Amino acid sequence: MKTPPTPSALTEIQGIEPPNILNQAVVNQYKVSRKKQLSSEEMVSKIVQGDTVTLSRAITLIESTHPNHLAKANEVIKGCLPYANASVRIGITGVPGVGKSTFIEAFGKHLTSIGKKVAVLAVDPSSTLSHGSILGDKTRMEELVKDENAYIRPSASGESLGGVARKTRESIILCEACGFDTIIVETVGVGQSETAVHSMVDFFLLLKISGAGDELQGIKRGIMEMADAIVINKADGDNIAKAKLAKTEFNRALHLFPAKKSGWTPMASTCSAYTKAGIEDVWNTISAYFELVKNNHYFEEKRQEQNQFWMMETINEHLKSSFYNHPEIVRLLEENKKAVQNNEISPFAAAMNLLQRYFKD
Amino acid sequence: MKTPPTPSALTEIQGIEPPNILNQAVVNQYKVSRKKQLSSEEMVSKIVQGDTVTLSRAITLIESTHPNHLAKANEVIKGCLPYANASVRIGITGVPGVGKSTFIEAFGKHLTSIGKKVAVLAVDPSSTLSHGSILGDKTRMEELVKDENAYIRPSASGESLGGVARKTRESIILCEACGFDTIIVETVGVGQSETAVHSMVDFFLLLKISGAGDELQGIKRGIMEMADAIVINKADGDNIAKAKLAKTEFNRALHLFPAKKSGWTPMASTCSAYTKAGIEDVWNTISAYFELVKNNHYFEEKRQEQNQFWMMETINEHLKSSFYNHPEIVRLLEENKKAVQNNEISPFAAAMNLLQRYFKD
Repeated sequence: MKTPPTPSALTEIQGIEPPNILNQAVVNQYKVSRKKQLSSEEMVSKIVQGDTVTLSRAITLIESTHPNHLAKANEVIKGCLPYANASVRIGITGVPGVGKSTFIEAFGKHLTSIGKKVAVLAVDPSSTLSHGSILGDKTRMEELVKDENAYIRPSASGESLGGVARKTRESIILCEACGFDTIIVETVGVGQSETAVHSMVDFFLLLKISGAGDELQGIKRGIMEMADAIVINKADGDNIAKAKLAKTEFNRALHLFPAKKSGWTPMASTCSAYTKAGIEDVWNTISAYFELVKNNHYFEEKRQEQNQFWMMETINEHLKSSFYNHPEIVRLLEENKKAVQNNEISPFAAAMNLLQRYFKD
Repeated sequence: MKTPPTPSALTEIQGIEPPNILNQAVVNQYKVSRKKQLSSEEMVSKIVQGDTVTLSRAITLIESTHPNHLAKANEVIKGCLPYANASVRIGITGVPGVGKSTFIEAFGKHLTSIGKKVAVLAVDPSSTLSHGSILGDKTRMEELVKDENAYIRPSASGESLGGVARKTRESIILCEACGFDTIIVETVGVGQSETAVHSMVDFFLLLKISGAGDELQGIKRGIMEMADAIVINKADGDNIAKAKLAKTEFNRALHLFPAKKSGWTPMASTCSAYTKAGIEDVWNTISAYFELVKNNHYFEEKRQEQNQFWMMETINEHLKSSFYNHPEIVRLLEENKKAVQNNEISPFAAAMNLLQRYFKD
């Protein structure tokens, strides 16, 4: 019979089962909340059922720069296309200070109150996800953001207007497939973004306030010519008389432009996003426009034109980026720019040098 | 001894020397008048000696679409570049009816009378060699065309504004090398051609008449913003009072625009190409402009910017034409346009299809 070993620091006594270092409650919680990877077919099917969570994830996919995401995004868009197009697309522009967010809030609430499903998108190349976007600050549209018949998505971030515009335009398709029948695309009234928005909407609304003195700017930059309606906001309190005067002036200015291909006569009106006065009239005007252009087939014609435009625009953008990102071209471009600067070579000969090198590959 | 052969239809009798079927006088005349093929070096040397016949031939070379001509034209331009740039380049625009030709005639004659050498070029994409160009009809500038210190060249013909503009811009280099110190580039006041001309001149003059009612057009299309001076023509006879009123109005409108990068304040004036009143003032204004921008170095800066612009513009034009003339793309473009039209594919996906095919080569 063996004696038990003398107790020593070197002998191990039998211990207890170590406790699980994972907090199972947390693990379970995580497992539930983790996003399941959906296939593109699953995404399409959920989107057309009106699932806005999936809609948001699909738009994130569109906004991604990852090549795998691009391919998947294209599949989702393709799947959504047959369900898209059954909507009215309204562009809204106005310089900072005209009360764009409060207008969209009041206008959007009116639309949902009459049974519309409203998606609000934005084209704002200056914004990033972290700062800058008017729509990024969703608290400005407190009411609309809580409305279950409204969907608000801030502007995609991106370096180029072309990129941001593409993403917004593809997002329109997904929103429509998700059942939103009224798409509002807002943009800041600066730069080229208005032209981009104009080329993706059916109706273009220019938001103004009285006495801002930027009437000439609007004419000059061609914005007033694009407008199907001018709405003078903040027509409340002491401001009503001034707003009415501005309305008369804008109506006079609008008459100076040649007749529109749509057959529509643009007009100015006043409203107050604060008192809600005139908001309903804005929608009545827009409805009258859509009745006209659907009857005279301009609606369909314009959408076809816009599609062709975006196709060409995408091609031209890619051709340029392929050229200017070519490593050899980057180097040669600097060299040739310098030679042009020193009058050693004409701009055209320099261009031909670069093109010859590029097409050699 | 043989007897001579009996005369028969089958025997040939000795005839006379046939006469030369060429009229030697005509041959000699032809040999003299036929243009000797000059090498590009010879052309450059003759151009810098002020030979306008060679200048015209070199410009014809620039305007040619033959590939061999292109190479030779580039050599001539390269050879002329060191002698170019010592000039002032003035763009003149105005809608048909403002008296552009008579103005240029009177203005050009004034310039040659004060010792300037004046070349008049044109950018008019609508013109062909056979018909259309204002400058093609040289009889409108009877006096100037006979002036040995003036050189008038009609607009190049071509289908695209880009092509016509390039040819005119390269012709400027040759004219400068040929000793012309004042280059006038005229264009019709319609379409995009004004922007093209603006980007190749130092000073941009907008020609107007009173009461034409196209003031808003000018603002709208950005022409007034580009103008360094507005000259109201036909200020003669009963028209003087109206022209002065128009001058005041245009001066007021010009003040609404933001300050120019050049530091120059654009202004309106009146003139009569018929009575010559005010023509000298136009030149005094232009001289004051050049004194300012040469002192503040805006002159050089703007020319550098224009060179870079034309380099990029040429590249972008070629990238597009290479793509859209690709035989496979021509076919695929039609297919994809149709698919976009039928909502089978998004404009972006269609564009990607085409780009993938293009870059496969």
